[in-house]
Amino acid sequence: MTSILKHHFTTKIFSPLRLSFFIVPLAIVIGLMVAFFLWLLEVVTNLRWQHEWLIWLLPFAGVLIVWVYKTLGENSDKGNNLIIDAIHNPSTMVTFRMMPLVLLTTIITHLFGGSAGREGTAVQMGGSTADLWSKWLQLKPADKRILLLCGMSAGFGAVFGTPVTGAVFALEVIAIGSIKFDALLPCLLAGIVADITCAACGIHHTHYSIASIENAVIKIGGFFLKVDILLILKVALAGCLFGLAAALFANTTHFIKQKTNQYIKQPLLVPMVGGALVIGISYALGTFDYMGLGVANPNNGVSIVTAFNSYGVTNFSWLWKLLLTAITLGMGFKGGEVTPLFFIGAALGNVLASYTGCPVDLLAGLGFIAVFAGATNTPLACTIMGVELFGGQHILYYAIACFAAYYCSGHKSIYSAQRVAVRKYNSLL
Amino acid sequence: MTSILKHHFTTKIFSPLRLSFFIVPLAIVIGLMVAFFLWLLEVVTNLRWQHEWLIWLLPFAGVLIVWVYKTLGENSDKGNNLIIDAIHNPSTMVTFRMMPLVLLTTIITHLFGGSAGREGTAVQMGGSTADLWSKWLQLKPADKRILLLCGMSAGFGAVFGTPVTGAVFALEVIAIGSIKFDALLPCLLAGIVADITCAACGIHHTHYSIASIENAVIKIGGFFLKVDILLILKVALAGCLFGLAAALFANTTHFIKQKTNQYIKQPLLVPMVGGALVIGISYALGTFDYMGLGVANPNNGVSIVTAFNSYGVTNFSWLWKLLLTAITLGMGFKGGEVTPLFFIGAALGNVLASYTGCPVDLLAGLGFIAVFAGATNTPLACTIMGVELFGGQHILYYAIACFAAYYCSGHKSIYSAQRVAVRKYNSLL
Repeated sequence: MTSILKHHFTTKIFSPLRLSFFIVPLAIVIGLMVAFFLWLLEVVTNLRWQHEWLIWLLPFAGVLIVWVYKTLGENSDKGNNLIIDAIHNPSTMVTFRMMPLVLLTTIITHLFGGSAGREGTAVQMGGSTADLWSKWLQLKPADKRILLLCGMSAGFGAVFGTPVTGAVFALEVIAIGSIKFDALLPCLLAGIVADITCAACGIHHTHYSIASIENAVIKIGGFFLKVDILLILKVALAGCLFGLAAALFANTTHFIKQKTNQYIKQPLLVPMVGGALVIGISYALGTFDYMGLGVANPNNGVSIVTAFNSYGVTNFSWLWKLLLTAITLGMGFKGGEVTPLFFIGAALGNVLASYTGCPVDLLAGLGFIAVFAGATNTPLACTIMGVELFGGQHILYYAIACFAAYYCSGHKSIYSAQRVAVRKYNSLL
Repeated sequence: MTSILKHHFTTKIFSPLRLSFFIVPLAIVIGLMVAFFLWLLEVVTNLRWQHEWLIWLLPFAGVLIVWVYKTLGENSDKGNNLIIDAIHNPSTMVTFRMMPLVLLTTIITHLFGGSAGREGTAVQMGGSTADLWSKWLQLKPADKRILLLCGMSAGFGAVFGTPVTGAVFALEVIAIGSIKFDALLPCLLAGIVADITCAACGIHHTHYSIASIENAVIKIGGFFLKVDILLILKVALAGCLFGLAAALFANTTHFIKQKTNQYIKQPLLVPMVGGALVIGISYALGTFDYMGLGVANPNNGVSIVTAFNSYGVTNFSWLWKLLLTAITLGMGFKGGEVTPLFFIGAALGNVLASYTGCPVDLLAGLGFIAVFAGATNTPLACTIMGVELFGGQHILYYAIACFAAYYCSGHKSIYSAQRVAVRKYNSLL
């Protein structure tokens, strides 16, 4: 027994302390960078709302972004995929230029009204900083891998204020169909420290809420049903549709990227056309609600926040956001995919609620997490994200929606570097 | 695009319907069996409380249990390990006798005051029924594997009223350090149906609650801290201790089993001595609080419920429960390990709270899930269990405690059939 205790104390208990030595300062730096990024994002989003004419410059902003990446980017244009590649194969070179470049170009995208998100930027800033850190510390490849995972977790945890989700997301996103636990504790530590740092800078995350559901007790013979089986079935069906929407988004983005590269031979022309399309479609729709981040909207327009209220979105809001985001990200602009996925999901959930008679806030919240789960193949992280964002009462519905969306979204992900560890279907399924 | 949709509709959307055909009836049967088991368990526990002299028969009850397994048990004495083996290698023979045998012997164990739990019994009833089902349906090995996982998930989900945890637990427990997602949706379906069935029979699960914590905002220079960093550090430390307690439990049980088999040559004498030890230690302690399930206690004694209140347990309650359970399960009696692990964790958490100044209910709840996480190597399932049992507000603390406990509990599990997929430590850690 003494030897067991001694073994525990020398090799296990004190190693987290050794580990913190590497990870805590890294996570603080990432948390500060994410706070700066979120602050900048708010500034440029407000600027765009105040000066509507800025959107006319979107095509030229796109040219600038593509030109900057062509001239200075080295391989950093690969974005999140480069970080995922480096985690699978630590000899992959990640350049630190990725950090300032993705920050700058995301801000430009948002200033001029491109439809994009935040998480890709935060994850890339975290990953490239972690890579630099591991070079300075001259870490072995296995250690570099852990630090890269921590960088992703820190970026994700800080940008959404969800540290547990950040840790599970980093481990879950690198491969489809499995999670390995070797970096569980380091990732959680990184996520917590980065989130605390970011919040300490005064960054507030948007608050969403889903009201309680009181199920009536139904007596059938000698049996009592306290759950709403019909609601469970509706949520499962909605989850499947969220998964199909995720697959549609991933396929549309890939399709646009492939076709434009095929038909438009001059690379600088691609974002020019993309920017023009975003403006044109917005004018055709008569609204700018689907440009930019889409979390809130000062003009009483459609946003993620309004998707939680009855009649807060139109029947096709989800589709327009999907299209504009696929064009923005497929044609050279920068930013994350996740916030638009939240928008698409919440808006689609809102519509499904009105047709199925489910609570609107519940289905909007489920769409928010489940489209993301389907598009990135991270059903566990998204179930946990539901708890961190909306509270734990509805965890059963989160799990049903996210698992069903994961199941229905196919093997094509928004991250092409994601590997298939375990396929989703087998003979029984 | 048409071909993508067609592919989705033919191979993916309709397969859950096909799948339900196998799993729903199985889960309903398991839910009914678990309800019957929980009802019986309540009856015999009340009987023992009313007739204290029953505990004097514990040694003879043990002889009966060992004799029954020797005579009729075939290989079902291996319990949960047999189910886990069969999941890894579907050609492993699981006998259906396991179902009635484990039900009967667990009830006997509890009637006469052995210190044991419920989940092992529920999981074995679920697993052996699933095995029978797959024989009837003449399923292929890969399908049998999924059905066995569903059986575990259904048993676990129904016995604790936690379907999401049941699904993640089944996938997480079969190997240390990784989860594969191939049976995620079938397991969730099985857990939900079994839980609904069990609840519909009128089974109530004990309600636990953890009060809210309002963190004061601390201003340091230009930074605002809204989280209690000291509490996070205390929870991390407590998590490590929960992991060591889990390791102590697993090692003590294995040690007792090994030594008694080595020194007591007559197998029927083992439970005789074990029963006598349980009675003797209880008399020496002057309390019967550590016999039986330990969820509640009619005599104002120590139980899991009282561990959530200040001064609800003594300083060494956790150790006595650990010892009596290790003796009970290591010397031939039957039942689960999980409810005693809940007891050990909640009681240890209570003591740690009084020494560290943390909220008692929070640390009791964390111990409840984290000792279990450490002993079974299921940190994600236990984090989710925290949400399903205590609500989502404290998920950050659940994750810290469960991940730390997982990390500190070593590679020895209470299930010897569990395989190591990814080791817990590497060079950086």
